[in-house]
Amino acid sequence: MFSPTTYTERRKRLAQLVGSGLILLPGNGEAAMNYRGNTYPFKQDSNFRYFAGHNQPDLVLTIDAATGESHLYGDDLTLDDIVWMGEHPSTAELAERIGARAGGSLEDLAQLLKTAKNVHYLPPYREARQRHIEEWLGEGTAPSKELIRAVVELRSVKSAEEIAEMERAVRTSLKMHEAARAQTKPGMTEAEVAGLIEGIAISGGGRLSYPAIVTRNGHILHNHYHGNTLQEGDLLLIDAGAETPTGYAGDLTRTFAVGREMDERQQAVYDIVNDAKERVIKAIRPGVAYRDLHDQSARIIVDGLKELGLMRGDTNEAVAAGAHALFYPHGLGHMIGLDVHDMEDLGEDFVGYDDRIKRSPLFGTRNLRLGRELREGFVVTVEPGIYFIPTLIDRWREENNHTQFIDYEAVAAYRNFGGIRLEDDVVVTGGGARVLGKSE
Amino acid sequence: MFSPTTYTERRKRLAQLVGSGLILLPGNGEAAMNYRGNTYPFKQDSNFRYFAGHNQPDLVLTIDAATGESHLYGDDLTLDDIVWMGEHPSTAELAERIGARAGGSLEDLAQLLKTAKNVHYLPPYREARQRHIEEWLGEGTAPSKELIRAVVELRSVKSAEEIAEMERAVRTSLKMHEAARAQTKPGMTEAEVAGLIEGIAISGGGRLSYPAIVTRNGHILHNHYHGNTLQEGDLLLIDAGAETPTGYAGDLTRTFAVGREMDERQQAVYDIVNDAKERVIKAIRPGVAYRDLHDQSARIIVDGLKELGLMRGDTNEAVAAGAHALFYPHGLGHMIGLDVHDMEDLGEDFVGYDDRIKRSPLFGTRNLRLGRELREGFVVTVEPGIYFIPTLIDRWREENNHTQFIDYEAVAAYRNFGGIRLEDDVVVTGGGARVLGKSE
Repeated sequence: MFSPTTYTERRKRLAQLVGSGLILLPGNGEAAMNYRGNTYPFKQDSNFRYFAGHNQPDLVLTIDAATGESHLYGDDLTLDDIVWMGEHPSTAELAERIGARAGGSLEDLAQLLKTAKNVHYLPPYREARQRHIEEWLGEGTAPSKELIRAVVELRSVKSAEEIAEMERAVRTSLKMHEAARAQTKPGMTEAEVAGLIEGIAISGGGRLSYPAIVTRNGHILHNHYHGNTLQEGDLLLIDAGAETPTGYAGDLTRTFAVGREMDERQQAVYDIVNDAKERVIKAIRPGVAYRDLHDQSARIIVDGLKELGLMRGDTNEAVAAGAHALFYPHGLGHMIGLDVHDMEDLGEDFVGYDDRIKRSPLFGTRNLRLGRELREGFVVTVEPGIYFIPTLIDRWREENNHTQFIDYEAVAAYRNFGGIRLEDDVVVTGGGARVLGKSE
Repeated sequence: MFSPTTYTERRKRLAQLVGSGLILLPGNGEAAMNYRGNTYPFKQDSNFRYFAGHNQPDLVLTIDAATGESHLYGDDLTLDDIVWMGEHPSTAELAERIGARAGGSLEDLAQLLKTAKNVHYLPPYREARQRHIEEWLGEGTAPSKELIRAVVELRSVKSAEEIAEMERAVRTSLKMHEAARAQTKPGMTEAEVAGLIEGIAISGGGRLSYPAIVTRNGHILHNHYHGNTLQEGDLLLIDAGAETPTGYAGDLTRTFAVGREMDERQQAVYDIVNDAKERVIKAIRPGVAYRDLHDQSARIIVDGLKELGLMRGDTNEAVAAGAHALFYPHGLGHMIGLDVHDMEDLGEDFVGYDDRIKRSPLFGTRNLRLGRELREGFVVTVEPGIYFIPTLIDRWREENNHTQFIDYEAVAAYRNFGGIRLEDDVVVTGGGARVLGKSE
């Protein structure tokens, strides 16, 4: 946790931005796996954590937007709880640690909310939260756009103390990837590598910031199956990041060949992806639209695939038409912070787009989570990739999609190639950008 | 997964036990961590898994109790899904693999349920399930006691193929504990040991079957805080088990001293707990009430504590009065299978008690999850422990609780001792019991 002042200051700014009404920020509860008593590792709500710091279940923060006055609500432990879970600070003590007042029990909160007017809350992403909101406020209320916009405004720009935490997250993430690279041998299963990686994240005092992707089938973008045995020469794509004990996320992707150096063809595709990543990072600075960086990465990939004989024609036209998306069907990256896709619970379009830059409807580019202009203090991922997805190739070929840009005969030879993605986390500085986790 | 016949047979027996109506067994969906797209590792509903085998989200099984005819419902993937998640078998194919019929989409199911009568379902333990049930059946319905009783009847007795899976779970769990024992050194944090353990579970192709307890404060029974640094001589209590890829749980507890052998006092308490565990295991056989085994373990603990000078008086009277619960405030163990506390979602009293043996109201013993007579094929944990819980000691002493049995002066010297628990998983055989994971 940071100092009480950090949280007091954040809440003051939030109140000013929202202006009036009662801001309701519930923390998360425990989430059941296979029965109520067997819970997943606790994951705090990131908005609650940003404004209230604490990382335990069943707390609720309220902020009076007119005055900035904040109250923390929660139920204190019984003797039975103490036997099973140990001594815990009271809610009053937790409130004091973040410069807030003790509001009382959750029942006190429920009573207060019965008569409260103009209550601002954020979009619920768990059913339990949805049910609480309905119980507290009645059915038919809606999340507050003013509150969403105010939270996005504050959380988008990371402070120096936040960036220091994100450096820590990336350093632990780098250790995970380095261990995987050093210890992966032909004959191991993907699961063995996944266990090695996740163990390091947990040993660091946090956990993974998202379910790890550890796969010889990197062309399946969100592949969480880890049952394959690795063969020499397989491309192993690992997309995994650690979360610090303070809740900040790392998100890195590396791809390497198992048990030997990459062959020439693998290396050639790797070099294109790496070139896209490096050149985009060099282009990052305040004022640049991330959407333009995405298009730049797509052009670099098209140029590279043209050299390999897989694409042809005018690069700009190919990207404008969306032809690159056969090989690169996702976006260049996203904001990162307390969430790996930062603030995705608030709605991607509130976070990544604005009045000037709207989401593209094109296949591939429509998956870009961030389009708007970068500002100093934004932290973003840069993660281009090239994939050969048999189902997609077959579909596009049947439909004669973009035949002026794609040489399907040549592509056929890469059918079982898999996929390569490379990803770093980058902070936008006054003069450009800095890759997190790198010594200067 | 087992063969289709296994699942067909289980469903046939379930239908016979329930007799009439429509049995509704929904599988689990994904569970959101900090936004909908960032999910916890998928955990299937154990009842669904027992009768339908499959381990993917958003499937629903129905069984016509009159005929035993089964249908599997689920939505097939779109092209977009395939790009992100890879090719998956259709619901029809999944149905075939378990000897069921393809029912159609989840919307088809919702339509069917609108007019269905006498629908049996199990108690929901996730809010999302509760919401589905209300959407499908309207508000105000209740879980089916007939279905609960029938499921408990079937799942309580493990088949040979289930016991083989549980052996696997225990073997992986033993590897976790052996690695922790071998690699834990003074100066390491609890989190480092926790990462080592959990990594091994994941490398085995499953995950943990419950959140690991790795603590120098073993007297806090469900302590998931891993932030302490271990000192030489600390008692480290580790309660952790692996889950097999097929979903069966292991659950083992070991306690050892960090960086050296136990001192005399630690060893003396350890020996009492170990004696309780070993003697109880020897007493296990079909027809013995688990409640009697619990009482036996309490008597062994009281006898041991009398030898240490911490308790006094008549052992039987002390246990009948509940005086042992100051040191041993939990139950001897529980059933284990697909769930670590097997079938706890169905209600502990349905699983662990019956018309003859009812739950005790006494502090400590009321936490015993299983009381009823053992049958061949039951798998249970045996996990006695001795703890020194300062808050509880202070409270009891203030209240002059059981002063005829407890020497509070002597207990004061153990105030910072911590806790020791030892736990094995045991299958009830025709002639007695076998500890899982031990070579015969």
